[in-house]
Amino acid sequence: MPTFKITVAYDGTDFVGWQRQASGVSVQSLLEDALRELDGRDVAVASAGRTDAGVHALGQVAGFSLARSIEADAVLRALNARLPDSVRVLAADDAADTFHPRFDARAKRYRYRIWNGMIGSPFERRYAWHIQERLDVEAMDAAARMVEGRHDFAAFQGSGGATRTTVREIFVSRIADCGLGIGPAPESVIESAIRDPKSAILVYEVTGTGFLRHMVRAIAGTLVEVGRGRHRPEWIADVIASADRAAAGPTAPAHGLFLVAVDY
Amino acid sequence: MPTFKITVAYDGTDFVGWQRQASGVSVQSLLEDALRELDGRDVAVASAGRTDAGVHALGQVAGFSLARSIEADAVLRALNARLPDSVRVLAADDAADTFHPRFDARAKRYRYRIWNGMIGSPFERRYAWHIQERLDVEAMDAAARMVEGRHDFAAFQGSGGATRTTVREIFVSRIADCGLGIGPAPESVIESAIRDPKSAILVYEVTGTGFLRHMVRAIAGTLVEVGRGRHRPEWIADVIASADRAAAGPTAPAHGLFLVAVDY
Repeated sequence: MPTFKITVAYDGTDFVGWQRQASGVSVQSLLEDALRELDGRDVAVASAGRTDAGVHALGQVAGFSLARSIEADAVLRALNARLPDSVRVLAADDAADTFHPRFDARAKRYRYRIWNGMIGSPFERRYAWHIQERLDVEAMDAAARMVEGRHDFAAFQGSGGATRTTVREIFVSRIADCGLGIGPAPESVIESAIRDPKSAILVYEVTGTGFLRHMVRAIAGTLVEVGRGRHRPEWIADVIASADRAAAGPTAPAHGLFLVAVDY
Repeated sequence: MPTFKITVAYDGTDFVGWQRQASGVSVQSLLEDALRELDGRDVAVASAGRTDAGVHALGQVAGFSLARSIEADAVLRALNARLPDSVRVLAADDAADTFHPRFDARAKRYRYRIWNGMIGSPFERRYAWHIQERLDVEAMDAAARMVEGRHDFAAFQGSGGATRTTVREIFVSRIADCGLGIGPAPESVIESAIRDPKSAILVYEVTGTGFLRHMVRAIAGTLVEVGRGRHRPEWIADVIASADRAAAGPTAPAHGLFLVAVDY
């Protein structure tokens, strides 16, 4: 049975999340339905991580085995022909029979996007958290860097999370002010929508061995508290040390979050 | 009666276009409905140009007069409070009683976006024309520049257009390969979706005194014919000289088109 590793991008807006649910459309169910058509039998698809309802992916990784003999390129084409255009398989590769997208992952990279400006953008309403109050980007970045390292992240674990340990290692955690509207090239739809020079896209990027349930969104919501000036950057260290979810900021909305890539 | 000039951005995906129609939601109807609530009477809203169904705007300009005395800033806030988040008023300014957004416009700038790569992007499916075949960007740019100047553009006028003259002056007409995926900053949602180094966003930008019905989309469709290698760049001059719509390429789909700005 040939085993495949696929890289998948999806707009999470219309899905109940990665995982198949009793009702609603999930990315997993779309892939499994397409693969059943292709393989003539039920196919179980595993992913590197279950994204919540509304969360997007630029590079989710999934794995499965098929009964029929088929080339990876043909799998890619067959899947894209059967999937809605809100889900695209970007790459398909042969994988070892033992490949598991979650257990074999060495690191995952997430991005959380914030549209910071008085007036929202029609083109970012599904892809960024709109915050009107001007955020202190430098303070947020200083706070973000305190997340780096090996810590017990229980303070950033959403309810419903159930893991043996809440210790995780974060390699990179930083904020970048992309200053849309003053950038060099018209590569973004929204670049010219910004008449207010104080508008910007803030991007929080975080890479780590693994993440607890809602962890990136809880960190993002906590960084925004610092950006609003309600706490100093050093507060993040206290929040982590507390291991208390109530000590941290609110969980940022799902639609600003992107699973960017998974490393193996 | 105070008169206002407003700058409006909208995601055209869900609208029947700018202009009020017998059925369906238009941007004009949303604005007029919001202004009726605000002013307690029917308010007619004029625009710099009627965008077709599916066409987007980063900087559409509209104008109207109100019966009540109200500050421009209050108009902006009241409109944004009443409009869906797919339509945002970016600016509101006091205007002369004689202001008309179409008749007073000196130039309009449009942008046509093409996603050129084998695999579509879930995040660009509403905002760019997806073309799989690799386009020759240099040939397209050479062709685009031949559109500059004062010409009879009858060859690029869609059916249903009815104007006294089909002569227009184009100040700038060029193609830019924005080379997404190799850009410097993560300002775009889609930047990291590109694993295929041959994927790119091509942006056609055109500025002129005015445009015929479907003119930008007809030019974009014609430039793509050149990009596919079906014609040499010089062909565009022949197309223009023919004044024959059948001589030009197909009309590019609406969802790649953006009204970027209007100059007064």
